[in-house]
Amino acid sequence: MSGLLGVAVLGAGHMGADHVRRLDRVVSGARVAAVADPDPERAEEAVGGIEKVTVHTEAEAALDAPGVDAVLVASPGEAHEEALLAAFARGLPVLCEKPMVPDSAGALRVVEAEARLDRRLAQIGFMRRYDTEYRRLKSLLDGGRLGRPLMLHCVHRNVSSPPHFTSSMLVTSSVSHEIDAARWLLGQELSAVTVLRPRPSAGAPEGLLDPQLVLFETEGGAVVDVEIFVNCGFGYEVRCEAVCEAGSARIGQAHTMVVTSAGDAREEVPQDYLVRFADAYDRQVQTWVDATRRGRVTGPGSWDGYAAAAVAEAGVRALETGARTPVELAPRPSRRHP
Amino acid sequence: MSGLLGVAVLGAGHMGADHVRRLDRVVSGARVAAVADPDPERAEEAVGGIEKVTVHTEAEAALDAPGVDAVLVASPGEAHEEALLAAFARGLPVLCEKPMVPDSAGALRVVEAEARLDRRLAQIGFMRRYDTEYRRLKSLLDGGRLGRPLMLHCVHRNVSSPPHFTSSMLVTSSVSHEIDAARWLLGQELSAVTVLRPRPSAGAPEGLLDPQLVLFETEGGAVVDVEIFVNCGFGYEVRCEAVCEAGSARIGQAHTMVVTSAGDAREEVPQDYLVRFADAYDRQVQTWVDATRRGRVTGPGSWDGYAAAAVAEAGVRALETGARTPVELAPRPSRRHP
Amino acid sequence: MSGLLGVAVLGAGHMGADHVRRLDRVVSGARVAAVADPDPERAEEAVGGIEKVTVHTEAEAALDAPGVDAVLVASPGEAHEEALLAAFARGLPVLCEKPMVPDSAGALRVVEAEARLDRRLAQIGFMRRYDTEYRRLKSLLDGGRLGRPLMLHCVHRNVSSPPHFTSSMLVTSSVSHEIDAARWLLGQELSAVTVLRPRPSAGAPEGLLDPQLVLFETEGGAVVDVEIFVNCGFGYEVRCEAVCEAGSARIGQAHTMVVTSAGDAREEVPQDYLVRFADAYDRQVQTWVDATRRGRVTGPGSWDGYAAAAVAEAGVRALETGARTPVELAPRPSRRHP
Amino acid sequence: MSGLLGVAVLGAGHMGADHVRRLDRVVSGARVAAVADPDPERAEEAVGGIEKVTVHTEAEAALDAPGVDAVLVASPGEAHEEALLAAFARGLPVLCEKPMVPDSAGALRVVEAEARLDRRLAQIGFMRRYDTEYRRLKSLLDGGRLGRPLMLHCVHRNVSSPPHFTSSMLVTSSVSHEIDAARWLLGQELSAVTVLRPRPSAGAPEGLLDPQLVLFETEGGAVVDVEIFVNCGFGYEVRCEAVCEAGSARIGQAHTMVVTSAGDAREEVPQDYLVRFADAYDRQVQTWVDATRRGRVTGPGSWDGYAAAAVAEAGVRALETGARTPVELAPRPSRRHP
Repeated sequence: MSGLLGVAVLGAGHMGADHVRRLDRVVSGARVAAVADPDPERAEEAVGGIEKVTVHTEAEAALDAPGVDAVLVASPGEAHEEALLAAFARGLPVLCEKPMVPDSAGALRVVEAEARLDRRLAQIGFMRRYDTEYRRLKSLLDGGRLGRPLMLHCVHRNVSSPPHFTSSMLVTSSVSHEIDAARWLLGQELSAVTVLRPRPSAGAPEGLLDPQLVLFETEGGAVVDVEIFVNCGFGYEVRCEAVCEAGSARIGQAHTMVVTSAGDAREEVPQDYLVRFADAYDRQVQTWVDATRRGRVTGPGSWDGYAAAAVAEAGVRALETGARTPVELAPRPSRRHP
Repeated sequence: MSGLLGVAVLGAGHMGADHVRRLDRVVSGARVAAVADPDPERAEEAVGGIEKVTVHTEAEAALDAPGVDAVLVASPGEAHEEALLAAFARGLPVLCEKPMVPDSAGALRVVEAEARLDRRLAQIGFMRRYDTEYRRLKSLLDGGRLGRPLMLHCVHRNVSSPPHFTSSMLVTSSVSHEIDAARWLLGQELSAVTVLRPRPSAGAPEGLLDPQLVLFETEGGAVVDVEIFVNCGFGYEVRCEAVCEAGSARIGQAHTMVVTSAGDAREEVPQDYLVRFADAYDRQVQTWVDATRRGRVTGPGSWDGYAAAAVAEAGVRALETGARTPVELAPRPSRRHP
Repeated sequence: MSGLLGVAVLGAGHMGADHVRRLDRVVSGARVAAVADPDPERAEEAVGGIEKVTVHTEAEAALDAPGVDAVLVASPGEAHEEALLAAFARGLPVLCEKPMVPDSAGALRVVEAEARLDRRLAQIGFMRRYDTEYRRLKSLLDGGRLGRPLMLHCVHRNVSSPPHFTSSMLVTSSVSHEIDAARWLLGQELSAVTVLRPRPSAGAPEGLLDPQLVLFETEGGAVVDVEIFVNCGFGYEVRCEAVCEAGSARIGQAHTMVVTSAGDAREEVPQDYLVRFADAYDRQVQTWVDATRRGRVTGPGSWDGYAAAAVAEAGVRALETGARTPVELAPRPSRRHP
Repeated sequence: MSGLLGVAVLGAGHMGADHVRRLDRVVSGARVAAVADPDPERAEEAVGGIEKVTVHTEAEAALDAPGVDAVLVASPGEAHEEALLAAFARGLPVLCEKPMVPDSAGALRVVEAEARLDRRLAQIGFMRRYDTEYRRLKSLLDGGRLGRPLMLHCVHRNVSSPPHFTSSMLVTSSVSHEIDAARWLLGQELSAVTVLRPRPSAGAPEGLLDPQLVLFETEGGAVVDVEIFVNCGFGYEVRCEAVCEAGSARIGQAHTMVVTSAGDAREEVPQDYLVRFADAYDRQVQTWVDATRRGRVTGPGSWDGYAAAAVAEAGVRALETGARTPVELAPRPSRRHP
């Protein structure tokens, strides 16, 4: 492709508007061709003064708009299945924000629909795979210098949770990042999950089971523990330590500036995931644009989206029952395409 | 007491000989008065040229030797119950290496025997309570600035395990330090334990379940996770992070010198607990000597020794069954003394 | 400007080719319109398959090529004065790699030529001003929370120096970054320079005075020390600590991943400035493109280029004489434009 | 020596009283035999209830008191020469706080007096040589793994200076620690000194030149820079980085506990040298007691005390003149003893 990649952005909320800005002003080789949102004012506001963009209230209309070469799905999760199937029907490459589809049954339908195509079209927005620190850790583990990974210790903390966040969403929304990261780093499926529930923090909203300690076992015998604490109050922290047979490696304690003042040496802790992972979001979209312009699809795919949904569902059952819960994955469909 | 505290050291093995050296040449206000070991040559070797020390093959003979004011028990764990009861019978203050008594039934007998005395006599050698880092963490938690502790994340790694180390001993010998540290830091009893068993490291001896992930719940609703990995190969590491309602604090990542060379910035990792906790051992014994000379007994007591034994026994059952196992503590005996 | 900014790149060497790649594939809103290099094959190679780019052996021809809206100067320093004056003559905004002009007399001619224009056109490529860490430090100092800066301690290390690197070039080429950074961070001109010359490292080429300790005094009474060591052998390190009246802040010791293995905890040290400052280069060019498209010129200007040249010249005299050498700046020309 | 080493402590001020406590309650193998201070109440207070200690107003009376085997000099620096010569006259081993003698002429007289004895008697209290971090750095440099040291970067900060502290005392009292540390780490004499004087901090008392940047050159061609800042306001910091031909090593940034709370990750900075170097003081005295009981004298000697005084004198001239000032050392007297 010699010209710019024309992208239809579905959804003009917080994340969609950020992607419109990114496609227009940060990444190279792409332009926003269409934006769809049920709320036309919100769509217009996201577009701002960008030229040659059509605005729609229906996703399918945006897909059919002139100059659309690819789709970025940033609408609410419930709308993803329909959007993905519509993109597949038109042969449009698509970058879909996580969760791919919130329930595993719907996610599996997407996997099966893509498997029936003659080529891969979907990339799922697990942006940690594009973070510099995670990529270094992945590269170190793949290199084999530290031997087989035995355990991952993960910490995932948010300053505070959004309104209406439920105890289940600590697993399905927050820990879903660790679910994908663990599958990717270890190259293994997760086979069982247990959730320990400490007495909730006084800083958590009434009724929210926060924090939780979520424990995964993998098909290869590794163990993953995740502290998820979405009302920690003090910062956004994402850490991961891989404990291997010949050494350990940890990421997520980076600091840029140390200030010594009044008896302390301080490092600033980021307060927001858009700060911590800003580069990862940029790199994810740039990589997707570059690959798509060359006619390729790379990165996490629909099976990764399905597996995350299935593990999260088992996690919710584990949270509710207090018991170790096996993860049941459907057989992976064979693909017509290579 | 105006003169030096005369100490009988029971056991002249690795740890006992180290305590003889410490009493003779490091701590102030004490002297070695007697040493007992079934192997008289070993006892003589530990004594070296120290003057005015009597050497014995029987523990009780050492307790009755001239100039003995107090006892340091460093014999194998199986001999501790008898040694403690003998010290109690003579009214001698005693510092007893961990485990106080390996089985909880025997440990409870010691608790009950001491409760019948008119004063406290036993201090148990949980030396982490005397480590500068742990003391800072304890002080921070007690100060309340970070709110209630919700979780402790602990890591305990050894380069390699001694011969004949069994899978149960990861819990009863290694994790026993974390059992006491968690009880002390949180000021709560542990109420349940679960053990996850990753596929063992290729670096572990055949048949040894190493590493393990040991999970404790406390009576106050906190959760404690412990990575125990006794054949990690690369160093002796002890870390602890306390996650609280208003912040987190972590110890065990201290470094003294950073060397940048050939593409890496490196910090040396200690290889041995006697290096990492050298100051804690010295401070523990100095504190005991100082208190004993003033007629007082401080530090962890026989109930702490019993609780550690009871929790470790539940941990072994959890390891063997794979199930969450409640910890049953006997009622704490009321003491005649204040 | 609604279309892409057409940029003429002068010079297709290592740095020029990197900027061609950056304009084509990394930054948003720009395209390469023309490339000039005395070696046409090198220019063609830099262009690769990019479409609609004209290739020239003469700089002025590239400036006059169709679609050129702005200029990026990446030719050798000796060619910069002519290139800048040619751009000024055409009213073209220009981003000029450092050094702006190697000798201060030529640099002053550029300052004066720009002062005669009715608007500012030149931005100089001091890319550290676009580095995240330096920007944080600048923001902290400007905020005033730490009081007045008293000293800067700087370290600048390269693995090895390129062929034909001279002792003077440690000051004029390497330390020129610290010269600009110090002027920018402190908001003051440098008024004197002293150079201490340790006995050269065995790792330095015969005859090269490497390392050096370069000391600057500022007009406001601050002191700046710079370790410059261009054959340190172990990594590319750039550190800066600002010591202020109420605290100190240091950057340049960031780490992303810590690997514990075989007795060390290691952080990787970058080996190259294009790795360490990759984001700064990208951000510098993106910022320049964004501002230029809005008809504005921001960032370090020709006076900054002149001051760096004048300080570096004094530094070379200080190196040669061993004496404290005052910096003499010409009066700053008043500008016709605001 | 089979009994305890009886020590006469001269001076019962802040430091002397601390040594009395240390000899009585911290180090092994010694006891306080006599204390001398012109103020008898102060001496009595330092002694507290320690038994069998005689109290004196004259230093020589304390040296002649019964049971005195060795001397610890903690009186003001002006009294040191007389005390050292008196100890030499009696053949008593002596640990003398720094400065050995404030002026180099007097210091040289002490060196010459000791050289006339048939054995070494004096150890000077440069306690940094007993600090764990410094010892590691010394060991690393001596091991040769990093090649020849080229530069030392030192930072020495105090929260605030005591009353009556003068600009010269930044060099003679504070930097004297770095003078000895540099000589010891590098194994070289210092040959020249230059002092840069930034505009004083608003936090410094009126008239005090604080901070200063003190630059030493060594006879072997190394360069040492020292930031001395005695009213930094935020903590007690002592850092040292050795830059060598094949790598760099830095100490003094140790942390024990990291607290993350309210947007910062914080490490506590010690506020006082008695906290930072508590272990070094203990180890220094224990080492001195151990060696003395075996009839030996180790550690820094009178020549080290003299060299420190001579370098400090040159430093004061450099501070006053603003010029690079050579250090002139007297020829080192040959000793009668080995």
